[in-house]
Amino acid sequence: MIVDVELGARRYPIHIEAGLLGRAGALLAPLVRPRPDGNRLVVVSDTHVAPLHLPALTAALAESGVEAVPVILPAGEASKSWAGLEQLCEALLAHGVERRDVVVALGGGVIGDLTGFATSVLRRGCGFVQIPTTLLAQVDSSVGGKTAINAAAGKNLIGSFHQPAMVLIDPTVLATLPPRELAAGYAEVVKYGLLGDANFFSWCEAHAARLLAGDAMVQAEAIAASCRAKAAIVAADERETGDVRALLNLGHTFGHAFEAEAGFSDRLLHGEGVALGMALAFDFSARTGLCSPDDAARVRAHLAAHGYPLSPRALGLDAPPERLLAHMMQDKKVEAGRLTLILVRGIGQAFVAHDVDKAEVQAFLAHALAA
Amino acid sequence: MIVDVELGARRYPIHIEAGLLGRAGALLAPLVRPRPDGNRLVVVSDTHVAPLHLPALTAALAESGVEAVPVILPAGEASKSWAGLEQLCEALLAHGVERRDVVVALGGGVIGDLTGFATSVLRRGCGFVQIPTTLLAQVDSSVGGKTAINAAAGKNLIGSFHQPAMVLIDPTVLATLPPRELAAGYAEVVKYGLLGDANFFSWCEAHAARLLAGDAMVQAEAIAASCRAKAAIVAADERETGDVRALLNLGHTFGHAFEAEAGFSDRLLHGEGVALGMALAFDFSARTGLCSPDDAARVRAHLAAHGYPLSPRALGLDAPPERLLAHMMQDKKVEAGRLTLILVRGIGQAFVAHDVDKAEVQAFLAHALAA
Repeated sequence: MIVDVELGARRYPIHIEAGLLGRAGALLAPLVRPRPDGNRLVVVSDTHVAPLHLPALTAALAESGVEAVPVILPAGEASKSWAGLEQLCEALLAHGVERRDVVVALGGGVIGDLTGFATSVLRRGCGFVQIPTTLLAQVDSSVGGKTAINAAAGKNLIGSFHQPAMVLIDPTVLATLPPRELAAGYAEVVKYGLLGDANFFSWCEAHAARLLAGDAMVQAEAIAASCRAKAAIVAADERETGDVRALLNLGHTFGHAFEAEAGFSDRLLHGEGVALGMALAFDFSARTGLCSPDDAARVRAHLAAHGYPLSPRALGLDAPPERLLAHMMQDKKVEAGRLTLILVRGIGQAFVAHDVDKAEVQAFLAHALAA
Repeated sequence: MIVDVELGARRYPIHIEAGLLGRAGALLAPLVRPRPDGNRLVVVSDTHVAPLHLPALTAALAESGVEAVPVILPAGEASKSWAGLEQLCEALLAHGVERRDVVVALGGGVIGDLTGFATSVLRRGCGFVQIPTTLLAQVDSSVGGKTAINAAAGKNLIGSFHQPAMVLIDPTVLATLPPRELAAGYAEVVKYGLLGDANFFSWCEAHAARLLAGDAMVQAEAIAASCRAKAAIVAADERETGDVRALLNLGHTFGHAFEAEAGFSDRLLHGEGVALGMALAFDFSARTGLCSPDDAARVRAHLAAHGYPLSPRALGLDAPPERLLAHMMQDKKVEAGRLTLILVRGIGQAFVAHDVDKAEVQAFLAHALAA
């Protein structure tokens, strides 16, 4: 199926289909600039993903008369750096990539964010296609055009808004994903229900077990619903100049405090931090009378049932509340010392709360950590 | 006086006035984000320009209650690099620059291009103001939003389109510019006459001597005419997707061959390469019957009268024509091996010539080098 991201001149389709990787040639070939010496397409991937999925893509491109030219970076967050950006840009230039070319990003969020950023500045901008290979990338980072590398001062602080020309999502690639990473990605799926679509959250409650067990049909349905939700938000607020796009940060500010406390290590994956953060955002909203305690309990029950670590103490991340609050104040939504949080009036009813009372948040954290 | 660059939501004013640097506070203060701990404005400059002009700007800002926070980079092209970009971005982040802030670029083309690019990617884009201190930057690089650093594969290959919020041009800063650099900048002034405004070229013939002798009133008039011409072109074709903006490359492809031959060293400054290139573009146009030999002779006479080096042999740059042609084929306007040149039908009548006969260019170069 196809989900369109409606951005005027920058609109693009997201193709979602089991087995799509093996049929990608027909979709990609029309984007390839004809060259007298043979049509080529540079594919950026990493040392972990390339052995798993590059052969299928290469074969699919060859069927359409296009040679895949691989650029393989070291797997891991370290590639999303100044050094990784320079290395990738110089490699793309060495391969003769021009402004009318597209470059394919085959991988998870690191490869997608890095390739998106590199192509946004290569010759002042060329095209790119996202082929995300993790659930997190499929439902979140590959859609919407945010690209970035990490700076010494923090994650994702250097980047651009650069929309892909096309996104190709093949849920069958998730079969090679470790269960913990699949679950981490699913947290971002649940997020779309919690922030704006109570019916979709009910669907999640009914289908999470099959999704996490690897049912590709259920995965495709969840991915499509997530992409539709994100596409609508991005179309309404492409550059996060209003409050709409900020809703996508539900769970992210609370979660960020614990991710920072864990040193952004695999002690707490980003999706796990988001799950914990969403539970806390609902708890805080319930505690301050914004939403019913039943909704908060229902959210916590769903996440707990699927194994998310929701106790900072059990994680060894029960830092002093003032330190957790200090981490939250590093959030990009903080302006002039004012804390902005995504809070909820109920399931599917998130909103942006500006200038939240910091003492109240700190007291809540002390209470939550004691649990 | 004020020249507006009409780019819809990205429109901005170019203020041109003798003594403007000392009155910049009133213009810049409204762009500064209020901070509880005191209003600040980061000013990026280099070790050459800062001692000359930063004190005046700092004093002007202080008068308006704004503290100038300097970031001083090493003077020279080497700062327009991956390392320079990283250094500047991390410094801006360390100074707490946020998305709603503007950063001031005080310097020549290197500082303007680098600061423009850094601010385009800092937190996915913040604002910047250009205060160009060379004639070349005042009439060319500070206007139009092209930003870049140099890559290993070539100059300006990594960058973005990022329009400044404002450009402040004070011709009196040119008093500290070496005469050779002033003349190099003047080549880009003449270019606007030659590419699209025969009357302005006549004005140049009448006023060049006073401009090059340091007459600030004449300089201001030349800068304003140049900025108006460039603003009109940029408004018509911001991202060089059509042929309009390409006209700004008059003289640049021929000139590039000799700049490359000189290793982009001070044996041939960029503006000197452009002057030589414009003379050759007119000569080639005359030789191929596109324009009258009288026009070509008039252009050459004007440039020669003001001391531009127009003989590759005298410069020691009379390389084999096939090598010069190979340099020209590295131009960004080359696509699929086809050479695009900006040629002329007369003074003020430039046009984009696609797929120019390479053998004819090579024969012309052989002839020109023998002169």
